[in-house]
Amino acid sequence: MTAVVVRNIERASAADVQAILPYGTATVHEAMGRTGLLAPYVRPIFDSARVCGTAVTVSCHPGDNLMIHAAIEVCRPGDVLVVTCTSPSTDGMFGELLAVSARAHGVVGLVIDAGVRDTQELTDMGFPVWAKAISAKGTVKATAGSVNVPVVCAGALVHPGDIILGDRDGVVCVPRALVGDIAERAAARVARETQTRARLAAGELGLDIYGLRAKLETLGVAYVDR
Amino acid sequence: MTAVVVRNIERASAADVQAILPYGTATVHEAMGRTGLLAPYVRPIFDSARVCGTAVTVSCHPGDNLMIHAAIEVCRPGDVLVVTCTSPSTDGMFGELLAVSARAHGVVGLVIDAGVRDTQELTDMGFPVWAKAISAKGTVKATAGSVNVPVVCAGALVHPGDIILGDRDGVVCVPRALVGDIAERAAARVARETQTRARLAAGELGLDIYGLRAKLETLGVAYVDR
Amino acid sequence: MTAVVVRNIERASAADVQAILPYGTATVHEAMGRTGLLAPYVRPIFDSARVCGTAVTVSCHPGDNLMIHAAIEVCRPGDVLVVTCTSPSTDGMFGELLAVSARAHGVVGLVIDAGVRDTQELTDMGFPVWAKAISAKGTVKATAGSVNVPVVCAGALVHPGDIILGDRDGVVCVPRALVGDIAERAAARVARETQTRARLAAGELGLDIYGLRAKLETLGVAYVDR
Amino acid sequence: MTAVVVRNIERASAADVQAILPYGTATVHEAMGRTGLLAPYVRPIFDSARVCGTAVTVSCHPGDNLMIHAAIEVCRPGDVLVVTCTSPSTDGMFGELLAVSARAHGVVGLVIDAGVRDTQELTDMGFPVWAKAISAKGTVKATAGSVNVPVVCAGALVHPGDIILGDRDGVVCVPRALVGDIAERAAARVARETQTRARLAAGELGLDIYGLRAKLETLGVAYVDR
Amino acid sequence: MTAVVVRNIERASAADVQAILPYGTATVHEAMGRTGLLAPYVRPIFDSARVCGTAVTVSCHPGDNLMIHAAIEVCRPGDVLVVTCTSPSTDGMFGELLAVSARAHGVVGLVIDAGVRDTQELTDMGFPVWAKAISAKGTVKATAGSVNVPVVCAGALVHPGDIILGDRDGVVCVPRALVGDIAERAAARVARETQTRARLAAGELGLDIYGLRAKLETLGVAYVDR
Amino acid sequence: MTAVVVRNIERASAADVQAILPYGTATVHEAMGRTGLLAPYVRPIFDSARVCGTAVTVSCHPGDNLMIHAAIEVCRPGDVLVVTCTSPSTDGMFGELLAVSARAHGVVGLVIDAGVRDTQELTDMGFPVWAKAISAKGTVKATAGSVNVPVVCAGALVHPGDIILGDRDGVVCVPRALVGDIAERAAARVARETQTRARLAAGELGLDIYGLRAKLETLGVAYVDR
Repeated sequence: MTAVVVRNIERASAADVQAILPYGTATVHEAMGRTGLLAPYVRPIFDSARVCGTAVTVSCHPGDNLMIHAAIEVCRPGDVLVVTCTSPSTDGMFGELLAVSARAHGVVGLVIDAGVRDTQELTDMGFPVWAKAISAKGTVKATAGSVNVPVVCAGALVHPGDIILGDRDGVVCVPRALVGDIAERAAARVARETQTRARLAAGELGLDIYGLRAKLETLGVAYVDR
Repeated sequence: MTAVVVRNIERASAADVQAILPYGTATVHEAMGRTGLLAPYVRPIFDSARVCGTAVTVSCHPGDNLMIHAAIEVCRPGDVLVVTCTSPSTDGMFGELLAVSARAHGVVGLVIDAGVRDTQELTDMGFPVWAKAISAKGTVKATAGSVNVPVVCAGALVHPGDIILGDRDGVVCVPRALVGDIAERAAARVARETQTRARLAAGELGLDIYGLRAKLETLGVAYVDR
Repeated sequence: MTAVVVRNIERASAADVQAILPYGTATVHEAMGRTGLLAPYVRPIFDSARVCGTAVTVSCHPGDNLMIHAAIEVCRPGDVLVVTCTSPSTDGMFGELLAVSARAHGVVGLVIDAGVRDTQELTDMGFPVWAKAISAKGTVKATAGSVNVPVVCAGALVHPGDIILGDRDGVVCVPRALVGDIAERAAARVARETQTRARLAAGELGLDIYGLRAKLETLGVAYVDR
Repeated sequence: MTAVVVRNIERASAADVQAILPYGTATVHEAMGRTGLLAPYVRPIFDSARVCGTAVTVSCHPGDNLMIHAAIEVCRPGDVLVVTCTSPSTDGMFGELLAVSARAHGVVGLVIDAGVRDTQELTDMGFPVWAKAISAKGTVKATAGSVNVPVVCAGALVHPGDIILGDRDGVVCVPRALVGDIAERAAARVARETQTRARLAAGELGLDIYGLRAKLETLGVAYVDR
Repeated sequence: MTAVVVRNIERASAADVQAILPYGTATVHEAMGRTGLLAPYVRPIFDSARVCGTAVTVSCHPGDNLMIHAAIEVCRPGDVLVVTCTSPSTDGMFGELLAVSARAHGVVGLVIDAGVRDTQELTDMGFPVWAKAISAKGTVKATAGSVNVPVVCAGALVHPGDIILGDRDGVVCVPRALVGDIAERAAARVARETQTRARLAAGELGLDIYGLRAKLETLGVAYVDR
Repeated sequence: MTAVVVRNIERASAADVQAILPYGTATVHEAMGRTGLLAPYVRPIFDSARVCGTAVTVSCHPGDNLMIHAAIEVCRPGDVLVVTCTSPSTDGMFGELLAVSARAHGVVGLVIDAGVRDTQELTDMGFPVWAKAISAKGTVKATAGSVNVPVVCAGALVHPGDIILGDRDGVVCVPRALVGDIAERAAARVARETQTRARLAAGELGLDIYGLRAKLETLGVAYVDR
């Protein structure tokens, strides 16, 4: 319950990150049994934004980015900052200068359950950001918070060191311990989808491929003609 | 009140679709006496998205896309899938595989009062989608619903076979029976606007062109100098 | 309390506009002591939208753009229309024809706490618009309102003649009387940031540059190792 | 597409109203196959509000209650006013004076997809109202609309003459033609629930009463001990 | 632009407060030409809450109630605290202890564009509060703000010393300078409504009392029989 | 990642529950360092609702209450059901019959990040419920979920067996392991507040009691006279 900065955390390995990297958030979230997804109000600030890295978590007071500064010090190359507030905020808690600083310490992206600013500069830098809002509203640096504690960000539980994967469809958090299993399932899913895609493109129906006709019948769905 | 799939519907004719195709949603909605518009929270997933086709309607349980699979079987070339849920959902109920399948059956676009995923792939395919949310959240295939019954989608009533027109400004539904009249009014409106545009560009005021000065006076609007 | 059109207003000078023009909304809002910002739900309709000009304010009935027509008559080159409604609306109260008319009278942009339509045409024209919604929904011209009275637009107080600065991060309103001071502070801020950026890029920490370590200690933030 | 007041409509009979009256909205909505419910943002202004009557529908311009005045003329004893706007509004479009007028013409309640005011007076009168908002915001009487046309109110399709049932849980619309069947199903449901209630109160589980254990097994839900 | 506490303000007189006190917010807002109303999301925490007093305004950082403490020192008997945040917050920035303190200094109520807590205790005290949210979330006391400067609260401009009237329908702000005129209009409105109420109760129609039939005809509203 | 029902969990002891029971949510949340609070959109369905018990957690598919039935079997006297959905829902997933069943198994209340129905019956039963919405919308029983796994409910992390405290101000979750410490802090806080209350009631200022004058000076807040 005390404000704390955890300096050293156990991170998913580089191999783990590489194992998740090839997949999209939809695939990985499915491979996880449809868990781990952040709420869809967290959106990328540019369409080509894509990131896969290890979470350094930050819990801030709304409208106060003090702890983001504290977090950057404990970041390592490949980290993704995952910032949440103790109550909802749309303030622009992160901008170009922080991105320059973060990048200097190896940070590869930001996920923030709040606002972001300098969006044109961030886009020009190619620094990927997923945020709840775009807002020029500035912040103070006055209130304590924590770094590298478990946080709830956009409705999803994120532990420090988990893998954060973000793309145009959203952001998913992969628990460190489960990476191997999930990567395997994701690969299997992609393989299966490649086959399915070909059959669907040829005109076969999902009803038949997935065996849904029996289900419709069981559910009592009636087929009628006008 | 039973879940039902209506196999064959009466669709607006290809000529009807051609009659509405040239116009924008704003023009058509005005020509309809400012009716027929879906709520503006339904947005295209890419700016150049444009569609004009005949509605195949789908009513789904939230977070369940079973009935979209059932709907594709009864689609014909030129159809637009119009999907709604029995209660609000932002889940990604439609993605690339369904788009491949839909396109294989001639579907030219999707309007969904819920979420969509694989947005980069859909954009690359040029498959136009209007959705309430972008979300990687996957769905189940467990609960009955209906296909080709009248639905309320994003606040607008859509009958199967109606014309669905979508562009960057939103989506409008044109009742099948009214197409001729509406196309005529739309054409007249465009013609009128061409003239008005020229006058406005030359500096004439809407106050004069539309005869609004008298109205302002009647309403008691006072002109004052500081 | 009567509906009124104020014909002539005192505007920020061209020199004032030039003084603010070089800065972004985040910088100017900070220079103003973090005031003057419109709520972030007002977003540009295209990413490169940028404007700096003098406010002509319009208060409309929801779903009624009569007073925008009245406002254009009193606009002068360099003005930005700032439109608000007496209660929330997402209707498309402004479109291409009004933009043609506004531009013919020198208007350089629009900020509207409501909806806008013809967004593709407005983008093609390069006419910058910040709006709460994109909606094809048309409006009537039936109810009185006011032009060039103080208005609250997206939560910010705007006086006629104030400077309106808009970019990808949002919109800020600079009170006419304060421009000189604000421009100076903005310049100082940019200069300071240039230095800070270099230090951050070199790996120095905000913790050190801004002297935040002492604050963290005062606040009782504990540093721990796992 | 023209604004119209339909003077005489076919209403559900008094017997139909009596048939639905005994049931709650949850029961009736279930009896309808989980259809017909208005969105839950439409809330009663006092907890004991309850109504069952025949719909007179009104489509208004936002912030404009002209057509409610027109509607009252065509109301008959037992009617419920169902008011919707062509775009979202929270304005107080209905208050005590209109309630006095409506009641003088036999109106037994109001459902409005907008705001209401004079809520203390309406509560004192015992006039039941379901609304989206409570707001003192006044309206104008300037724009045409329609009375007794099919409307979408809070996401549900309502035809003039349909039965409107409202209670603390919300509002449901029962299509005129289906009343008999629905009342029968509702009665059956209530009877079934009486039995189920007794079994549940005695400690039997829904899992057993509804036969859900097999379903859980089919779905692969695992039972584990910590 | 600097944080400031204005110690002494010019307040509406006790006579002014008495002049507005008898009326409801709907009446006063209408008497003001339908201006001055706060957004309807600001709701009383108990239905019988009613207040009329002079505004002491407070601008806070979100989640920080330091300036409310500063404000109480400059309050006088009959004041209403009007609290707003520099960006949206639902935190419980005010509770029972602050109410005890405020009441000790003569404060008669609170309007806050944020959250409030200890709602049961506040209700038991009979201390009227209008708030955006009810939340137990606590706040810090860390960031500067201002007292008795003009603020925008729930979308309405409030100057220190203005009259704040709150009831079950919402909150309206009456500018100090306009009280006399507004009280007169409110009285006239109430008198008019007394007459109108009697006529409506007797079955006369608003269509006739307000002369709306001609307007409907002008607007082209057609009366039809089914 | 598999759906699972954990049959036996470690619960906070009865003594723990008794230790937290006397306090309000605001006090406990403060004692926890301002953590543990659920989002304020979860509201009690009647004002006097109050609960303190041990969490049995349930994760459901939206619009599907199958797992609530599964959960009741593993409940014990003193438990509070904490229900969340895998994506947002306002459906009425819990009603009177489930309350009867839950109560028969000793359940003392419900917290649900979704809707609830039969609110009048639940109120009459005195069964306390905190919900996001009130909705008659019924649910299906078709999709797997989990019982007694850690869940995020209304933005807060809840582990099975944690203490759930609800009152008119909201809901707070107290981690099982921390109860002793938190109860102590809560008691200390209440004692402190009793003293502070008396001083505030006597007219002393929070500025002096909390020593805030120095802070205001440090922050540069200026005191001025008009």
